[in-house]
Amino acid sequence: MYHNCKMGETVKRIAVLGSTGSIGQQTLQVIRALPDRFRIIGLAAGKNLDLLAEQVNEFKPRFVYHQAERSLPQTTSADYELLSLEDIASHPTVDTVVIATSGKAGLMATLAAVKAGKSVALANKESLVMAGEIITNEAKLNNARIMPVDSEHSAIWQCLEGETQPPGRLILTASGGPFLQCSPSQLKEVSVEQALEHPSWQMGKKVTIDSATLMNKGLEVIEAHWLFGISFENIEVIIHPQSIIHSMVEFADGSIKAQLSYPDMRLPIQYALSYPERLQNPQLPRLDWSNIRELTFEQPDFGTFPCLRLAIEAGKTGGTCPAVLCAADEVAVELFLSQAIRFTDIAGVVEETLKQHEVIVSPTLEEIIAADAWARDRVLKLAKKEKPW
Amino acid sequence: MYHNCKMGETVKRIAVLGSTGSIGQQTLQVIRALPDRFRIIGLAAGKNLDLLAEQVNEFKPRFVYHQAERSLPQTTSADYELLSLEDIASHPTVDTVVIATSGKAGLMATLAAVKAGKSVALANKESLVMAGEIITNEAKLNNARIMPVDSEHSAIWQCLEGETQPPGRLILTASGGPFLQCSPSQLKEVSVEQALEHPSWQMGKKVTIDSATLMNKGLEVIEAHWLFGISFENIEVIIHPQSIIHSMVEFADGSIKAQLSYPDMRLPIQYALSYPERLQNPQLPRLDWSNIRELTFEQPDFGTFPCLRLAIEAGKTGGTCPAVLCAADEVAVELFLSQAIRFTDIAGVVEETLKQHEVIVSPTLEEIIAADAWARDRVLKLAKKEKPW
Repeated sequence: MYHNCKMGETVKRIAVLGSTGSIGQQTLQVIRALPDRFRIIGLAAGKNLDLLAEQVNEFKPRFVYHQAERSLPQTTSADYELLSLEDIASHPTVDTVVIATSGKAGLMATLAAVKAGKSVALANKESLVMAGEIITNEAKLNNARIMPVDSEHSAIWQCLEGETQPPGRLILTASGGPFLQCSPSQLKEVSVEQALEHPSWQMGKKVTIDSATLMNKGLEVIEAHWLFGISFENIEVIIHPQSIIHSMVEFADGSIKAQLSYPDMRLPIQYALSYPERLQNPQLPRLDWSNIRELTFEQPDFGTFPCLRLAIEAGKTGGTCPAVLCAADEVAVELFLSQAIRFTDIAGVVEETLKQHEVIVSPTLEEIIAADAWARDRVLKLAKKEKPW
Repeated sequence: MYHNCKMGETVKRIAVLGSTGSIGQQTLQVIRALPDRFRIIGLAAGKNLDLLAEQVNEFKPRFVYHQAERSLPQTTSADYELLSLEDIASHPTVDTVVIATSGKAGLMATLAAVKAGKSVALANKESLVMAGEIITNEAKLNNARIMPVDSEHSAIWQCLEGETQPPGRLILTASGGPFLQCSPSQLKEVSVEQALEHPSWQMGKKVTIDSATLMNKGLEVIEAHWLFGISFENIEVIIHPQSIIHSMVEFADGSIKAQLSYPDMRLPIQYALSYPERLQNPQLPRLDWSNIRELTFEQPDFGTFPCLRLAIEAGKTGGTCPAVLCAADEVAVELFLSQAIRFTDIAGVVEETLKQHEVIVSPTLEEIIAADAWARDRVLKLAKKEKPW
């Protein structure tokens, strides 16, 4: 049963990297609601300086980072220090680093935080997909705790809490995205606007498109493999359109635990921040069972959604393959968003890039970054040709 | 996450009280499948001497008890000792006592086991319903662990494992029984055969009828109150006809954990025996998500199924009320099974008995047993009259 231990009511010192993005803003909502438990020490953003300035004004961090060439607009609290992402992520005054920066910047910050032995609330998918082996090894070496912020991995983490043995099987749920009932031919005609309309989650553009292709679920399978040390054979994906069950774990005796809530990222964010405690937060919605009539499930269609298959295959092959998958997908999604390629071309271009890649087994970080750069370049070249995929 | 601690591969010494009943037989199936981990020390049964003799032959217990007037048929292993239920339940050589004896006998054995500081795998509902306060107090005093064997309470127990704080809300699921879609007037005409056809669980007659009236769920609410120390206001019942989610827990942050499996009592039995470990047992079925299309939920109909309301009210009133409820229901179900009263009369006779009862607050064990006897007598008298309820 639960351990009735008294938690220290200490204030955790938090750095939020990527504070102006979707996850970053929701992290600040959680921290705003629980000012007695969390204090912002560092904020880092890309180029949205106006929002960053507002956040700096409100939370008065000690350290700030941004990627813009001009400087931060005048704020009332001017006594912050400009530091690099890695320096904020590893600063001795920081307890928990929220990595909500996307792409390679997030990977480097994750690595810095893990090497400094921090608690890392990880929302950046690329870190574990590109360099899962390096990051999890460094985490072990430096006694760092990697805490997932994705709703699926948070669900699995919550279900594993208190268990004495590793799980037998992970069951990742997927909403299926907006095109669940579409045929392959219908998918060819999908517009950017249609692809950006996710039925259950409010998210950034990249992850919304990845949800529509099911690439997002494939990346999550790779993340789950590294986070929980489970072989790909024992990670199952099922479609669950209501997004109420966020994932499940099957144990040695066949018993399954699931974690449920309305789809709201603030819950997994808060759990990562407050772990091992759970905190009351009136802003978090509670499931109303008088309104829930049914939860439905179906098998994923690997034929119609080849990205899911590509990701799982890349994960199984390992080496530089997942980094190439990840980079190729990122550029392909950008090309789709700018209407340079069709929705179904995303899978095609990723598959062709993977085919052309010469895999490096057990790559160094430099080799991973080189593979990432190679893949980005290759996708752009492929997109200029008459579609060979 | 899970504690990767190495469990001692010790053999647990088990006494099964009620070994010839449904739960008892399934307990022996589990123990038969895992002979390296469990050893039967004691077996106790009612009057089914033939089956008990077979079990004694197979498991060669040191201690045996039965209620029959003749003696146990000749067995090949004759070197057992005849002891009372209480003496088996409290014997120093026993690690875990499975209480699968129904009624008052189960209550007295539970009390003996708890006073002896045993691990108690509790399948007897009456114990906690009749004497929840006394038993939970004795368990605390004597450092005994009460482990639920009911699928619903086992689900809650599994979901609480590793949590650092008490839960906010318990959500007990109910299959709804065979008459879920019936109107009150249809229920009046229900036959014994119809009431014994449970849609998802194979169980004994008493609990099958209690499932059809929803009295069983009401008794489980009272049990949950005592097992987990949660107020009745924070225990919710929802109907879930597929019996896949066995119950759920909502935590302070609104996150919900659920436990799922096919309906098979061997899983909660095994979990109570193996706790805190989970053991692989090829006999236990695993959920096949390609066959599960939907899980549905609805609110219970307190008007059509008044037993659920009666039980929760009796639980809230406390004192001798739950014992009276429990005893009145047992006799009323017997009367229904012998076709002396109608299905809908079960609730009527229980309600009338509760109305006529003068509640004793904080009763002694003797007062509880006296209330039980009073209620049994009262139901028989009520049933002889022209129905006054």
